[in-house]
Amino acid sequence: MAPITASLAPDLQVTEWLNTDRRWSLHDLRGKVVVVEAFQMLCPGCVSQGLPQAGRVVELFSPDQVAVLGLHCVFEHHEVQGRREALEAFLHEYRITFPVAMDEPSDQRIPKTMAAYQLRGTPTLLLIDQRGRLRKKHFGVIPDLLLGAEIMSLVQESESVVEEPKEVSMSEGCGEGTCIA
Amino acid sequence: MAPITASLAPDLQVTEWLNTDRRWSLHDLRGKVVVVEAFQMLCPGCVSQGLPQAGRVVELFSPDQVAVLGLHCVFEHHEVQGRREALEAFLHEYRITFPVAMDEPSDQRIPKTMAAYQLRGTPTLLLIDQRGRLRKKHFGVIPDLLLGAEIMSLVQESESVVEEPKEVSMSEGCGEGTCIA
Amino acid sequence: MAPITASLAPDLQVTEWLNTDRRWSLHDLRGKVVVVEAFQMLCPGCVSQGLPQAGRVVELFSPDQVAVLGLHCVFEHHEVQGRREALEAFLHEYRITFPVAMDEPSDQRIPKTMAAYQLRGTPTLLLIDQRGRLRKKHFGVIPDLLLGAEIMSLVQESESVVEEPKEVSMSEGCGEGTCIA
Amino acid sequence: MAPITASLAPDLQVTEWLNTDRRWSLHDLRGKVVVVEAFQMLCPGCVSQGLPQAGRVVELFSPDQVAVLGLHCVFEHHEVQGRREALEAFLHEYRITFPVAMDEPSDQRIPKTMAAYQLRGTPTLLLIDQRGRLRKKHFGVIPDLLLGAEIMSLVQESESVVEEPKEVSMSEGCGEGTCIA
Repeated sequence: MAPITASLAPDLQVTEWLNTDRRWSLHDLRGKVVVVEAFQMLCPGCVSQGLPQAGRVVELFSPDQVAVLGLHCVFEHHEVQGRREALEAFLHEYRITFPVAMDEPSDQRIPKTMAAYQLRGTPTLLLIDQRGRLRKKHFGVIPDLLLGAEIMSLVQESESVVEEPKEVSMSEGCGEGTCIA
Repeated sequence: MAPITASLAPDLQVTEWLNTDRRWSLHDLRGKVVVVEAFQMLCPGCVSQGLPQAGRVVELFSPDQVAVLGLHCVFEHHEVQGRREALEAFLHEYRITFPVAMDEPSDQRIPKTMAAYQLRGTPTLLLIDQRGRLRKKHFGVIPDLLLGAEIMSLVQESESVVEEPKEVSMSEGCGEGTCIA
Repeated sequence: MAPITASLAPDLQVTEWLNTDRRWSLHDLRGKVVVVEAFQMLCPGCVSQGLPQAGRVVELFSPDQVAVLGLHCVFEHHEVQGRREALEAFLHEYRITFPVAMDEPSDQRIPKTMAAYQLRGTPTLLLIDQRGRLRKKHFGVIPDLLLGAEIMSLVQESESVVEEPKEVSMSEGCGEGTCIA
Repeated sequence: MAPITASLAPDLQVTEWLNTDRRWSLHDLRGKVVVVEAFQMLCPGCVSQGLPQAGRVVELFSPDQVAVLGLHCVFEHHEVQGRREALEAFLHEYRITFPVAMDEPSDQRIPKTMAAYQLRGTPTLLLIDQRGRLRKKHFGVIPDLLLGAEIMSLVQESESVVEEPKEVSMSEGCGEGTCIA
């Protein structure tokens, strides 16, 4: 994983959210480790590996400590995958119940959040620490043993943060730039 | 499997064919064993089990002896799954290269071929013998060992037919109608 | 598979049989397809692939048509694997219930049946047809779909034999006589 | 996992060590998280699940932080499994390279370390923290995601200990004896 000096994760740019009543932002999730599964509904590796793994993270970790989000990054077959009803039907059939964001299309092939994170493709797993910093960006399959270790590492890191709140709020401050939220 | 006194398999009622330049009919496939994989693109069991198994049949058996067809039977999420472009994108991403028929929609939820075969759902595997008789209709997963045995059984049955052509053509007789076999 | 002009399978040379009250010979099994799984109890590929596949053959095919035998071919770790109690404990723990023969040790590293069949190692799967001819010798893993097809092919071949017994016994000649088994 | 007030893990009682030149004790491993895989060579679940998982732990974690030990707890088929040569051959064939202890037989069916830890059977996975306390005893299969998280939790716990050594040794007190921590 990237060191704790990593940059803040870019904001999610989302047209619609599914499986949730609210619009999530990474800022609202400060204090939790955030696991983002970037996928496409017609990506075989996402369907067979990435999304089931994200589901196991949901089952195993406490929602108070770890938030799991899907990010539907359509960069091919836009006309098919880009429709909300298609994604809804997919999530229903595959029983995916965690919140899923539809990455906002741009005038390029690559949607906006995917571009901001410079993702190579899908599936990609992102790990964002409790202070909103992007600590891991993994394209392809990552073993469960490693993922479990890395999530727990971030969970505990954030706990120690709680013990020294002042220093933390300072290091966030202006130093991290105006766009940070 | 059903005995060789089984009825003829109903005709396929198809709006469009993908992965092929021609329109297939079961009649044209007489002389071959036909394996039909009835599926939906958003059916998890089809994606993880049924379609990969059909692909293994394609790889293992000679196309001179065994024909494999997909039958896309949309009975839910019609608006999403029923579009040709959606199915095309799916077949492309999952590298399914055998011919796939789009089952013709009816004014019911169940499309026409699916209704004619009285399928319970997807995935369903159909085995049609060399003379066009429906010998097996299996809903759900079927072990490879059993499927291999049953296909070979039908392949060899058809070969023995070749040894006694006259009787066969006679018993087929006049027509493809109800009297056949 | 080898054509039906293949040679007779050599006799099994066995010190002891487990999971059975009798001593089997291939000659006694004429009229059935015989599947022999050559294995060693400390061979990982046998434990994870070969033996479970043999178990599936037992479950799927009728014992009237297909006999499954294990052949314990110890060619390494003789002092450990060569003991009857070790093999018994192994069969018990892995719930292997089909008859298993202990291949007879020779003064070479390779036991006698293994040498007679010129096996390269374990797991090896042997297919012997209804008349005792060795039709297949496969070292390593064989897909279930193919194995199912090949067993069925031999099952049906033997059935057609029954329909024309005279020609068959003639074409085989004296070789099929009393000296054979 | 058990809280950090858990008791010290009992000493390992071992007749012989394999895959290592030295005799390990838990005491010597203070400062590392210790993962003990209790197994039997003829236990199917150990062979297919427990031991491969232990191997993945060896590959993933730094040996400076996590030590993996096998514990061969023979409680059935003593005459077969209890022999050093049998276990050696097994470890060789399954390419298990981490140190393995042969649990010392007692006059009961259950060997001594197994009795001291009150293990129900095999496979059982033990997690011992950096100060030698038994934090987890899991009989059966444990998901990789959970195991990765728990190991990392103990790894980081020990790191924070390093930052505040005095408080820790005090909170342990004399009751745990001079050898502790």
